[in-house]
Amino acid sequence: MRWELPIKEEDLALLVLERRRGGPKKYLVRVRRERFHTHRGFVDLGDLIGAEWGTSTKTSRGDRVLVLPPTAAEVIEKFPRKTQIAYPKDIAFLLMRADVKPGDVVVEGGTGSGALAFALSRAVGGSGRVVTYEIDDRFLKLAKKNLERLGATNVEFKLGDITSDVVEEEVDSFFIDIGDPWNALSSAWRALKPGRPFAALIPSCEQIPKLVNAAREEGFGLIEVHEILDREYDVDERRTRPSARMIGHTAFLVVGRKMLRD
Amino acid sequence: MRWELPIKEEDLALLVLERRRGGPKKYLVRVRRERFHTHRGFVDLGDLIGAEWGTSTKTSRGDRVLVLPPTAAEVIEKFPRKTQIAYPKDIAFLLMRADVKPGDVVVEGGTGSGALAFALSRAVGGSGRVVTYEIDDRFLKLAKKNLERLGATNVEFKLGDITSDVVEEEVDSFFIDIGDPWNALSSAWRALKPGRPFAALIPSCEQIPKLVNAAREEGFGLIEVHEILDREYDVDERRTRPSARMIGHTAFLVVGRKMLRD
Amino acid sequence: MRWELPIKEEDLALLVLERRRGGPKKYLVRVRRERFHTHRGFVDLGDLIGAEWGTSTKTSRGDRVLVLPPTAAEVIEKFPRKTQIAYPKDIAFLLMRADVKPGDVVVEGGTGSGALAFALSRAVGGSGRVVTYEIDDRFLKLAKKNLERLGATNVEFKLGDITSDVVEEEVDSFFIDIGDPWNALSSAWRALKPGRPFAALIPSCEQIPKLVNAAREEGFGLIEVHEILDREYDVDERRTRPSARMIGHTAFLVVGRKMLRD
Amino acid sequence: MRWELPIKEEDLALLVLERRRGGPKKYLVRVRRERFHTHRGFVDLGDLIGAEWGTSTKTSRGDRVLVLPPTAAEVIEKFPRKTQIAYPKDIAFLLMRADVKPGDVVVEGGTGSGALAFALSRAVGGSGRVVTYEIDDRFLKLAKKNLERLGATNVEFKLGDITSDVVEEEVDSFFIDIGDPWNALSSAWRALKPGRPFAALIPSCEQIPKLVNAAREEGFGLIEVHEILDREYDVDERRTRPSARMIGHTAFLVVGRKMLRD
Repeated sequence: MRWELPIKEEDLALLVLERRRGGPKKYLVRVRRERFHTHRGFVDLGDLIGAEWGTSTKTSRGDRVLVLPPTAAEVIEKFPRKTQIAYPKDIAFLLMRADVKPGDVVVEGGTGSGALAFALSRAVGGSGRVVTYEIDDRFLKLAKKNLERLGATNVEFKLGDITSDVVEEEVDSFFIDIGDPWNALSSAWRALKPGRPFAALIPSCEQIPKLVNAAREEGFGLIEVHEILDREYDVDERRTRPSARMIGHTAFLVVGRKMLRD
Repeated sequence: MRWELPIKEEDLALLVLERRRGGPKKYLVRVRRERFHTHRGFVDLGDLIGAEWGTSTKTSRGDRVLVLPPTAAEVIEKFPRKTQIAYPKDIAFLLMRADVKPGDVVVEGGTGSGALAFALSRAVGGSGRVVTYEIDDRFLKLAKKNLERLGATNVEFKLGDITSDVVEEEVDSFFIDIGDPWNALSSAWRALKPGRPFAALIPSCEQIPKLVNAAREEGFGLIEVHEILDREYDVDERRTRPSARMIGHTAFLVVGRKMLRD
Repeated sequence: MRWELPIKEEDLALLVLERRRGGPKKYLVRVRRERFHTHRGFVDLGDLIGAEWGTSTKTSRGDRVLVLPPTAAEVIEKFPRKTQIAYPKDIAFLLMRADVKPGDVVVEGGTGSGALAFALSRAVGGSGRVVTYEIDDRFLKLAKKNLERLGATNVEFKLGDITSDVVEEEVDSFFIDIGDPWNALSSAWRALKPGRPFAALIPSCEQIPKLVNAAREEGFGLIEVHEILDREYDVDERRTRPSARMIGHTAFLVVGRKMLRD
Repeated sequence: MRWELPIKEEDLALLVLERRRGGPKKYLVRVRRERFHTHRGFVDLGDLIGAEWGTSTKTSRGDRVLVLPPTAAEVIEKFPRKTQIAYPKDIAFLLMRADVKPGDVVVEGGTGSGALAFALSRAVGGSGRVVTYEIDDRFLKLAKKNLERLGATNVEFKLGDITSDVVEEEVDSFFIDIGDPWNALSSAWRALKPGRPFAALIPSCEQIPKLVNAAREEGFGLIEVHEILDREYDVDERRTRPSARMIGHTAFLVVGRKMLRD
């Protein structure tokens, strides 16, 4: 995931097709000697090999296409998936609130498609480590494949249940992204260093009090529930305004800290 | 900023005083053999030395206080400052959209109190580097002192103008937090690797089109404007609801990518 | 509540004290021959008698004060109250979604301080009628006094329980503002004209599914749940931006329509 | 617009087709002896004549359809239009902030398709009056036709420019919905009763300071800028959550009050 100049075969590239309405259309592609078809004509990817990042090219129909090294957020948005994945805006907030930094050891589960594991892998870096648990073997294999292709080498994939099978101790933070997050809280409490945070993503209102109350009972403190709304603005030559459409809801974000039990 | 067990003298600690209304009250303190006064009685900080993180103690009036290792977000919220500083929710979003990761070299300015530099320092880690520019010597000294106390060793402080004095090249991302951000765009373009992002924080509506149009002219592509709203939820024994008060606005966040010039 | 020129003794007036920060300060006063004290000096209200609306005067300290005929929203914001009252932004939305218009007959309860009854009274006008139910005699008396002072003559106050005592039939809409709104749904169904709406205000997340599911079972259709967020913007000579603080939550608003039972 | 039982030929009816995803689909129809085609089969509208409001019927494919008397909000959402029209959430807020009530005389322009005029017509009732100005004859004719069909008899349509041609005086409120609203402020000031409000809808950020500063110069006070966000919630048998998609922006809403000039 480090991009060297110039563009090489097998690099991941973000193609950006600008549109008059509705914002740009983004495609995440693997640079190979083949055509990539957009709804506005195709791009010959082989032509990009040897070019510099930040170049612009044209589709066969003559529309301008930007060629960019993808950011982690762009990779996550295009993650090969079988289920709903966490949004970059939510992951970003949780990385901050759960205080993830280079060198950290982090436990995470369920793995799902691996998008959150990828974000954690990037944030802890080569000196850190991510251990991810998933009970469904097919998901685990998909996630493993996804992360290998992205060059993530600091992630350990474990077939197991994050609510019962976690063996790690003294970890820096603990991420929960399963349907019954309250069942993973005792795992989290055991695995975490004292005072350190768990973080969970939940989609529904009903889950908020259930998770918060379970966290209190489990011995977590400073429990907070957040929801992140991302408003985009459109700027054209004549005027600026908030985008007409926005994402109304993705997930509620819950964090808390391991307290010593009396 | 790595917390070893147990609590040592001179450690930074977050004291959390739970309240019936309005959420918990947080204090960031340096652990020394002295009293710390809250509005609900004092805590004898010396008593914490040797205790474990995640312990709870009591104020002289008998109110419960949690003792936690502060997260980066909590440190930023309590940053010693002379001016308004960036909020963790905004920094978190920009770290993600500007794709900051361990090992990166990042340029930033104005330094201000150093809160953003601190967040960048944490995100790039020991193998990365942050260069921060500030034209006001007093701010630069304050920021330097703030970051030294936090143990940040990968930040280089430069007395200079980010709109004209930047000498770095091939940097991974470029953060702009000054009153006239459009004037720093040519610096950003020169300093950045091709295809890589600049990120800016601006408080006012008028600055949005001014910055976006200047960025287009300077040769940036995939320019986006975001605003992050953080809704908190209160959960008590009986009910869950969004907090009655919320932060209505902090900053508009603008990112864009360096394109090759024709 | 119709303001004749000029200002007369006993008129309600809105005094607006402009401030450099935090928006203007508003006071709702009864014009009498007495002094009114603000935090920036006093205003001699007697001096306003005979003046025109829209005039400006000065406090004893020399600060400018606007003198305005209060709108319904401003009256509601300053309603004499013993409990939390509905916000104008929420009332406005419900008046629209519940389709209240001049001439309508509307049932409402609990009366509380009468703020919602006042808004309904205004919206249905002299040719309409509002019947409001309240089980607490003290609230009912307070509300009656509040509305008499405001000149509302089309409101009927009933000491009784909106969940069981409603005798009206063929009403145009039915407003529920009590702690257990689901218990008022069968009253609503019996009282309403076919196809017509009920509207309820609820503060907590837990109440949403409870009310919605009860409404479905009771025979209501087209049930919707809304929440209205009001962002204010500050404009000074130099710049425009969303206000730093906003109301994060007041109430969830639920509406539905009476369907024929099979 | 008063619905008498039972459903009569030529009545306006709202057909609601419930869907598993994305909320119900609503159709506004005129009840005639003809078929109405939905994407899930047709409804024989003639069969509804003589039925009661609040009944449910089935499409030819067997899907359930609710038959409801449309509210003003539903009529507005389906307004025959040639341009963007104001949203009910915004109209509702402005009716409240501009203090519109039965019996009021209100000036409005540009008429556009007449949606706002319709809402004002409903709010002022038979004892009130709405005067609407439009410079484009085709719009004026369309609006006239739209409002006649809705039975609005208290609206006066004037071919003219709201920035220069308004002759009314002592009006209760003044609504501005044109591209250059600042040019209508002197009209508004002349037409309004002292202390009474103007209300304007503007789509773009750039228009906010332009309109606010012009209003200050024109002699308006207590100028406020609002934006109304409407969050909807989805409730199914299992869970409650904010809708995945929401309207991100419609208009900024500006109100102010006529002050006496010195």
